Amino acid sequence: MRVDVVAIGTELLLGQIVDTNSSWIGEQLAAHGFDSLLQMKVGDNLARVEAVLHRALADADAVIICGGLGPTHDDLTRDAIASVMGVKLQMQQDIADRIREMFATRGRTMSDNNLRQAMVPEGAAVIVQTRGTAPGLICPVVVNGVAKVLYAVPGVPHEMKDMLERAILPDLHQRSGVAAVIASRTLRTWGESESGLNERLDPIIAELDAVGNPTLAFLASGWEGIKVRLTAKAATAQAAHELLDVWDARVRDVVGSQVFGRDGDTMESVVLQMLRERGLTLGLAESVTGGLVGARITGITGASDVFRGGIVSYASEVKFDILGVPEGPVVSEAAAAAMAVGAQRALGASVGLALTGVAGPAEQDGMPVGTLCVGLAIGDAVHTATLRMPGQREQMRQMSVITALDFLRRTLSASGA
Amino acid sequence: MRVDVVAIGTELLLGQIVDTNSSWIGEQLAAHGFDSLLQMKVGDNLARVEAVLHRALADADAVIICGGLGPTHDDLTRDAIASVMGVKLQMQQDIADRIREMFATRGRTMSDNNLRQAMVPEGAAVIVQTRGTAPGLICPVVVNGVAKVLYAVPGVPHEMKDMLERAILPDLHQRSGVAAVIASRTLRTWGESESGLNERLDPIIAELDAVGNPTLAFLASGWEGIKVRLTAKAATAQAAHELLDVWDARVRDVVGSQVFGRDGDTMESVVLQMLRERGLTLGLAESVTGGLVGARITGITGASDVFRGGIVSYASEVKFDILGVPEGPVVSEAAAAAMAVGAQRALGASVGLALTGVAGPAEQDGMPVGTLCVGLAIGDAVHTATLRMPGQREQMRQMSVITALDFLRRTLSASGA
Repeated sequence: MRVDVVAIGTELLLGQIVDTNSSWIGEQLAAHGFDSLLQMKVGDNLARVEAVLHRALADADAVIICGGLGPTHDDLTRDAIASVMGVKLQMQQDIADRIREMFATRGRTMSDNNLRQAMVPEGAAVIVQTRGTAPGLICPVVVNGVAKVLYAVPGVPHEMKDMLERAILPDLHQRSGVAAVIASRTLRTWGESESGLNERLDPIIAELDAVGNPTLAFLASGWEGIKVRLTAKAATAQAAHELLDVWDARVRDVVGSQVFGRDGDTMESVVLQMLRERGLTLGLAESVTGGLVGARITGITGASDVFRGGIVSYASEVKFDILGVPEGPVVSEAAAAAMAVGAQRALGASVGLALTGVAGPAEQDGMPVGTLCVGLAIGDAVHTATLRMPGQREQMRQMSVITALDFLRRTLSASGA
Repeated sequence: MRVDVVAIGTELLLGQIVDTNSSWIGEQLAAHGFDSLLQMKVGDNLARVEAVLHRALADADAVIICGGLGPTHDDLTRDAIASVMGVKLQMQQDIADRIREMFATRGRTMSDNNLRQAMVPEGAAVIVQTRGTAPGLICPVVVNGVAKVLYAVPGVPHEMKDMLERAILPDLHQRSGVAAVIASRTLRTWGESESGLNERLDPIIAELDAVGNPTLAFLASGWEGIKVRLTAKAATAQAAHELLDVWDARVRDVVGSQVFGRDGDTMESVVLQMLRERGLTLGLAESVTGGLVGARITGITGASDVFRGGIVSYASEVKFDILGVPEGPVVSEAAAAAMAVGAQRALGASVGLALTGVAGPAEQDGMPVGTLCVGLAIGDAVHTATLRMPGQREQMRQMSVITALDFLRRTLSASGA
């Protein structure tokens, strides 16, 4: 089944907002086995929206329309759909009541233009709104004797996502006539390029190509590493998850400890959890990253039971005075080790992690731009490493964060605690 | 003139990469007075790319095509354009030589498929590549007797941007027959909502609407504040900039000190420069933001002459031990003041800036989620403030960063130093 996407809003064409909705929808459609072959952005203009919908329906079996469902005169999606369906819009009283109630609950008065959101094309089904005031629409339409469907969802990402998962994907599966459950799992990896992973997983990919289920895809995520996504189709959710378990294990057998987590895991959430399980606390000493590691760790709710704090020792004197680093070159494994021990002591943490390096533009202490020295103190043991980061200032710094956290993760794993 | 955009790449439809190129191009086109009314994404399939180009050319005067200019068999943009123009591709020797030379300079051998990038549709002009190996193309085409143009640029953002600015925008201006220079200026503001700014600027907007030049637009940028962009058209660059100077001053008269910078300025770059000009150095004490302020400041090249470092005092004991905060509630102006003075002392900085607050999920010290206390020590003077941040954890933290830096900016300005 071919499902194309139309994003509506002049602000998208003007570049005031980047259309991330259609990308997200494309990703979900692919995971569910639907093709999305054309995605369009068009402004808030009735004639142009109508023309785009006619075009999209000429080729696709279904079209998902994002945006233009708000209360203002610029919001034309309902009108365009009614015109394409050749029907009228009708006020649907239960939706009007629901909108009125939503305003009342928030203690606000509803202006009348909000009732535009209760107008529904004749013959369309409503996707009840649970988050915003605009309901979604499922609109059957016949094109040259072929039954097709238009879906309309709000442009607000969390409202759109809710409706896609709750109503549109199930409706598409029903229309496609394949009674199957789709489940997917993403393995997060760090430390290998996409082509390197691809090469190592070649035998597994060949096997999967032969059986066709589950499918395997690589998603490059910049300085967040490479994601390996398995998507399984089965008669029941349990069967789909069992299939995922089998191939998840096969992939891990090959990729090994480069898999650091799955699905919603991040490197920092995994490391925090490992420290928590071992009853350890963490203190940081950051130089080149200037606080990025602490910022990411404290982005995780509940970090405070593990994370004590950090010393951002940007000036060399701060390294000497607070962290007790001996005078000398500050981009070196010796300095990183001393920083880690200093952080452990100054912050009263059982684990000290330190980063010092050269983000550029010029080299420092004779070390080239891109050099990262990591120091790690766990109890009385000290580990260090020197690594080469690629790229420009921001990329070097961001890669340093996840590299240092991965060093901590691997060292904790290897210690077998 | 209507200039539509086609982004090419199956990875865009699968959501593996978000198409930010067409948004950026749309923004540039609008600033230069061109309409962009339809933007499409299509995969790496020759027939579909050809169909999309035919469609786009039916309505638009010019079409900018991004992507599909690489060396692999998936890169079909050249073939599709030649087909639409009804001409053949020809190997262009000077481009081939240039590509070979680029590989040689980087010490790499060139595989033959790279010569695909030297194939040019007959009658097309080349936009010489300066960054990547793929040149861009300017392809005149006649549609139903009307002269139109296809532009092709690589999908790599910095290569695309270079070619758009260097070749495509000037070519569009020449074709549009309006010999005018477009210049724009963006004023960065913090501390007021878009609707609030709009209301205050209403008289100026009315005046501008009447004269039509320059134009004024608001760009909401989330936790980076609201941007006010002026775009002027004039016969010469000097005249355009003089016009911008006049209206820049008019806007600043109304918006006042909420304007913190212009164009490439960020809150952190402005604050660093103010400190530098005053011969001051900065030390941080961060609790709720966990290192975000330091991370942003050290993102600026050359921060080291002003920035000494920071103490991320996440655990209360770190506040007491390293910063010398008296025991008591740690989310309070008193604690923020003590943290600022402690940072000043511990880090040997002339200015200490401190943030403590509640990012949630639960309240702390009886203070609700969203509370931010800022402390600022400049020499012997101490300033504090308590502010309410909106939103969820990440939004609260990010808004806290710019709010605290703005507090420092305003205090330095007010001190008249």
